[in-house]
Amino acid sequence: MEVLTVKTLRRCQFIDITNEISELVAKQSNAKAVLLYVPHTTAAITINENADPTVTQDILNHLEKMIPSGSHFRHSEGNSDAHVKSSLIGASILVPIEAGSLSLGTWQGIYFAEFDGPRTRKLYVQFL
Amino acid sequence: MEVLTVKTLRRCQFIDITNEISELVAKQSNAKAVLLYVPHTTAAITINENADPTVTQDILNHLEKMIPSGSHFRHSEGNSDAHVKSSLIGASILVPIEAGSLSLGTWQGIYFAEFDGPRTRKLYVQFL
Amino acid sequence: MEVLTVKTLRRCQFIDITNEISELVAKQSNAKAVLLYVPHTTAAITINENADPTVTQDILNHLEKMIPSGSHFRHSEGNSDAHVKSSLIGASILVPIEAGSLSLGTWQGIYFAEFDGPRTRKLYVQFL
Repeated sequence: MEVLTVKTLRRCQFIDITNEISELVAKQSNAKAVLLYVPHTTAAITINENADPTVTQDILNHLEKMIPSGSHFRHSEGNSDAHVKSSLIGASILVPIEAGSLSLGTWQGIYFAEFDGPRTRKLYVQFL
Repeated sequence: MEVLTVKTLRRCQFIDITNEISELVAKQSNAKAVLLYVPHTTAAITINENADPTVTQDILNHLEKMIPSGSHFRHSEGNSDAHVKSSLIGASILVPIEAGSLSLGTWQGIYFAEFDGPRTRKLYVQFL
Repeated sequence: MEVLTVKTLRRCQFIDITNEISELVAKQSNAKAVLLYVPHTTAAITINENADPTVTQDILNHLEKMIPSGSHFRHSEGNSDAHVKSSLIGASILVPIEAGSLSLGTWQGIYFAEFDGPRTRKLYVQFL
């Protein structure tokens, strides 16, 4: 298993990690898919458009609208909104590999999503 | 990797692809799971009830309520709601295979979800 | 494939199944990941904090706020909110295995999520 380090600079941020994952995939042979797993409870992983950066800003803004950080939650650390966002987006994603490359669509990028940063995070990368 | 073509007729639609996936699984031997991966950023894949068609309509309607298509987004193409829905439902799902068949529950069907159609789309099917 | 039985006591509940999954993983050798699959359409599986129990209560409460059970849905069984929640959280998750153990983060637990209980449910556990 490979471990990638991801640094975020804001509370809520999508970090494009497509190139880092592509490079790890290029070193593999015979893998059929790559599992990307986030071992943190206020972060997540997702795939979405990487052509226009306003798309990920729109996603973050709308998540904040649906799950405002100032909501009345019981958890005393004050970051329950980040836990909700993490479970909705999800901690793992699996991307197929074909002929040694990630089978991403034309407009797709892989994003590490942090909802309670800034933080230095890890991402587990397991080949299947 | 197999590639399935899916055509949608409306902007937002769930297409039941359970039969198509079952047929592909039947041709495989020794696979333990099937990865279904959507290479598009305004579509997604999910599993839900396929007995009563009002269930998927209710899901689409409620997603529209939570993420209205007329919202004020920054992305100029006007389809940011579809990108948000795509990341919430997710681009990949993995279904276990047992004795050569999909291990779906009694009421489960597999749905290709389009949020910015009508379109002709692809679905990647990778056996693990 | 292993099958785990999970009993819920309330309509909406997160059941921590981390220990049960860890025990199944400990009996395996050479597996690289474990697929957890929910064969029910009003339930789901997710990973989140297991240190403070108010976190999962906050998640359940906020899901109820976003998708109220009393909403006007078309599906006559009256549990459409549970179907929406199921598709948003998701029916499957894949956790990497390293050196014979689940690669969970420090604060992570695995939760079976029921949105239309109380029920006796199954969870499929497939090693890859």
